Order: sequence, then C-alpha cells, then structure tokens
Amino acid sequence: MIDEPAPRVVSDMEANDVASREAGVRLVAVAPGTARAVLVVEPRHLNGHGICHGGYLFLLADTAFAFACNSHGVPAVAAGGDITFLRPVTAGVELVAEAVEKELTGRSGLYDVTIRAGAGADAEVVAEFRGRSRQVPGLTAQR
Amino acid sequence: MIDEPAPRVVSDMEANDVASREAGVRLVAVAPGTARAVLVVEPRHLNGHGICHGGYLFLLADTAFAFACNSHGVPAVAAGGDITFLRPVTAGVELVAEAVEKELTGRSGLYDVTIRAGAGADAEVVAEFRGRSRQVPGLTAQR
Amino acid sequence: MIDEPAPRVVSDMEANDVASREAGVRLVAVAPGTARAVLVVEPRHLNGHGICHGGYLFLLADTAFAFACNSHGVPAVAAGGDITFLRPVTAGVELVAEAVEKELTGRSGLYDVTIRAGAGADAEVVAEFRGRSRQVPGLTAQR
Amino acid sequence: MIDEPAPRVVSDMEANDVASREAGVRLVAVAPGTARAVLVVEPRHLNGHGICHGGYLFLLADTAFAFACNSHGVPAVAAGGDITFLRPVTAGVELVAEAVEKELTGRSGLYDVTIRAGAGADAEVVAEFRGRSRQVPGLTAQR
Repeated sequence: MIDEPAPRVVSDMEANDVASREAGVRLVAVAPGTARAVLVVEPRHLNGHGICHGGYLFLLADTAFAFACNSHGVPAVAAGGDITFLRPVTAGVELVAEAVEKELTGRSGLYDVTIRAGAGADAEVVAEFRGRSRQVPGLTAQR
Repeated sequence: MIDEPAPRVVSDMEANDVASREAGVRLVAVAPGTARAVLVVEPRHLNGHGICHGGYLFLLADTAFAFACNSHGVPAVAAGGDITFLRPVTAGVELVAEAVEKELTGRSGLYDVTIRAGAGADAEVVAEFRGRSRQVPGLTAQR
Repeated sequence: MIDEPAPRVVSDMEANDVASREAGVRLVAVAPGTARAVLVVEPRHLNGHGICHGGYLFLLADTAFAFACNSHGVPAVAAGGDITFLRPVTAGVELVAEAVEKELTGRSGLYDVTIRAGAGADAEVVAEFRGRSRQVPGLTAQR
Repeated sequence: MIDEPAPRVVSDMEANDVASREAGVRLVAVAPGTARAVLVVEPRHLNGHGICHGGYLFLLADTAFAFACNSHGVPAVAAGGDITFLRPVTAGVELVAEAVEKELTGRSGLYDVTIRAGAGADAEVVAEFRGRSRQVPGLTAQR
C-alpha cells in the first residue's frame, strides 16, 4: 500500500499491525513526518448511543500517528495522546485521518492528527488528536 | 452483567454497545460515578511492534469512562480524553480499567481511569486516562 | 493596542486584564479566531533551574487563547488546556504566541497556540498549547 | 521552608525559583513524590473577566508539580501538562495545590495536582492538573 522505498520499520509495522487492520483501518500514505489512514464506520464500531465509539476514532488517529512518528526510519512508540471529539459519526461514513509532525526535538515528537468525515475540501472535522512520541532506537517491529 | 436496578441509560447502553463488546471489553461493575471494565489482550489487539495497540487501551478506558459518566442516569457523552502509556502490554494479559469521577460541575465531568495489568494489589499500572464528559439530557441510547 | 472596531468584550478584556499586563504580556493583534501576544523573558520569570517558568509560558499562551476565543464578540472562558514544553527559554528572549482557532462547534471551541522564540521565519518553537473554550453568553468583562 | 534534610536539588530549586516566589506562590511541604504550595489570589492575578487568570492557576500547579518530581533528588523538568478549570476564583481566596506522584517509570513521571479553594476538608476543587516530567540527571539548579 505504501510506495517503496519506505523505511524498513514502516513496512515491517504495516505488515505486522494486526490490530489496526482487523479494526478496518487502512493506511493510504506515509511520507517523512506524515501519514494518512482511513476507516469506514461499520455497525461493529458503534457504541451504546448508536454513534462511532470514541475508542475507534482514537485507534484510527493513533494509527496514523504511529506511522508518522516511525516514518523517519527510527523506531518510535506513543508516549500518550489527547483527543477532542467534535461531532458524532454514524455508520457508513468514511473517516480520513491526516497526521502531521509538529515538532521532533531530540527523541521526543509531537504530532497532530485531524479526522474528517470524508476526503473533500468541505469535509467536516469530527475529531482532533495530538500525540506525543518517543524514539526507541533499539526497538524492532515484530515478525 | 450489571446489578439491578441500574439507571435505564446504563442498561440501554450496555445492551447496545456493540463496539466495546466486539472488541472484547467486558463491563464488570457500575455504580454512581464509577465503573470497571476488563479486556484480555488477544493477538488481534497487537500492533506492528507486537504489543497491545494504544487504540485498544484507549477503547477500554473510554468504555469504563462512558459508563461512569452515564451512571447518574443522565445521558452524557465524551468531549475528549488524554491517555498516557506507561508500559507495553503483551498478548494474554488481562487488563482491568477502573474509572472514578473526579468532578461533576454543572453538566461537565472529569473522570480518571487507571488501567492495570491484572486485578491484584500488586498489579502494575500500564496506562492512565483522564476523560472529559458533557451531559446531554435529551440524548437516548439507541435500541 | 487593538485596531478599532474590536468587539466590546475584547476591548473590555484588554482594559481589565491586569494579570497578563503585570506579568509583562503584551497583546499585539486580535482578529476573528486569532490573536498574537508577546512576552520578553525577564529575571523575574525564571524558575529554580534558571529557565523561564512553565507557568509563564502557559500564561502567555493562555492569554493569546483567551483573546482568540473571545474575538467573535461572544464572551468565552477557558475550560482547560494542554501545553508541551519543547525547549528551555532563557532571560532576554522575546516570546511570540500565535493563537488560531481549530474548531468552534456550538459553544465549544478548540484553539492551538504556538510559542516561538522570536518573530522571524526561522524562530524556534519552544512550546505548543491547545486550549478548550466554552462560550458563556451572559458573562461580561469586569469594569 | 522545607524541613531538612531535603535533597540538594530541592533546596537549590527553592532558593532560586524567583518566578513562583515573585508570583506569590509559597511552597509549604515537599516529601518523596509529593509537594504542597499555596497562593493567595490578589488583584494583580485577575484577568479581564475579574477572576483569577488561568495562567496563575497553572503556575501554582506547575510549581507544586516541579517540586514533587524533583523530590527524589534527581533533577527533572516538566515535559508538559494539562489543566482543567472547574470553578472561577476571585480575589482574596487562598488556593492550595497538592501534587502527588501517580507513576515514575524509568525517567518519565506522571503527577496529579489538585487545586482547592482553601485547606479545609470541604474546600472546593477549582482545577485539576496532570503533569508529565522527564528526569535529566546532568541538570543542576542555578545558583
């Protein structure tokens, strides 16, 4: 899905990220400091209020963030993240998460991820995420 | 799973929360201002580094938070949340999330959720979550 | 300092914001959804490590945020905010905080404030702040 | 102000923390993993709405946090923090900030600070802060 040559850590991560793939998340782009991932909301993603569970919005954002912060080829892990839910999302909507690097100082990174309902220029923002990463040079993606 | 009498909004939510149930989350207790939920980490929850995806840690915490902030019988939604990942979690571990209400002022609430690896007194904390809620009196759980 | 006509709530706020003025913060621009404020770091702003106290970085960001979220003429208050400290700041540095509105949905707003050491294009970012606001139509600035 | 023997980094920090002292913050207790600081709100702390500026609430919490995360004798700096404002505070109120260590894993720490209006058991909580620290063994407090 990702254009070659991607850093080894990214292609390994993509091959091995069972969690996001089984959740329905699809990685559509990775470049240095950025990543884009999409999720079509299905009935299995809905919470008790009949809207997309915040956990899946976070999982989508966190996945885009993970690929963005590993995009430089140095393994990195999420130290934490904050998400603000702006609008409810119903089944059938295609969510697009765009991750961009705000800062990378030493081994610490800060990334913003915006989730929109759809890909058009007028697509509404449904959530804003900010993630904190930490590079861990020794870490390897699992095979 | 929840002792009767639970507020209607809570029993409706539990009956209808497809997302957390299909993710493997099990609600084990709800009382005014608190809730406890568990998740046994399975291979399908692992990310590309071979550890539990942060999205599922968030989903677990967010679920406990959702039941705690709806526990007073007034429908409430998550406005946002912040999670700090403290230790990696591998497959097979039983995660226990405890949500407690810190503050409820007007319609705004603040809840802390601690996720531990196991239920014992010496169980390690693997993540700390803080959620912000907003009561929406008109909202109803979906049937 | 602010070009007329500014909304009444903004000019009243500026006239009455003793805290930020006495701290050395100077508001230099307000427009719908944005604001810019500056602070020259003095010895009185330094903490026990000899660098600018995080409290003053927050105060600077929070001030820019407050003017941005009140810029539409509807009184608004801060519900909370998160700041990430990226680089230490020493005495004599001029800090410039730029607040921009990310989202305003109903009465809830989300604003990002970037603090740079200096105003040039190559000025380093020293902190990133994200603020959450809530409009309170009845509120008035104190005279 | 702090009982001897306090770790050297704490007594040095206290002696040199011009910022918090000039802001009116008084450190009243430090023990391993905890700290307490107080601030009496004065007219110079009020914002344009006539209530205590969020920057000073943050500065108070951040100061208690700084002493708590340096209390083990290893120099540490704030990586960031999140504050939720719960109730407005007017002039004359004595604010008490209690910092407690939630987690310290490797060099990363997580601290919660609760700010109450007054010291009594029935004192209202006016803000909740969560701080993220990072130990920096080589750092020394400035003389």
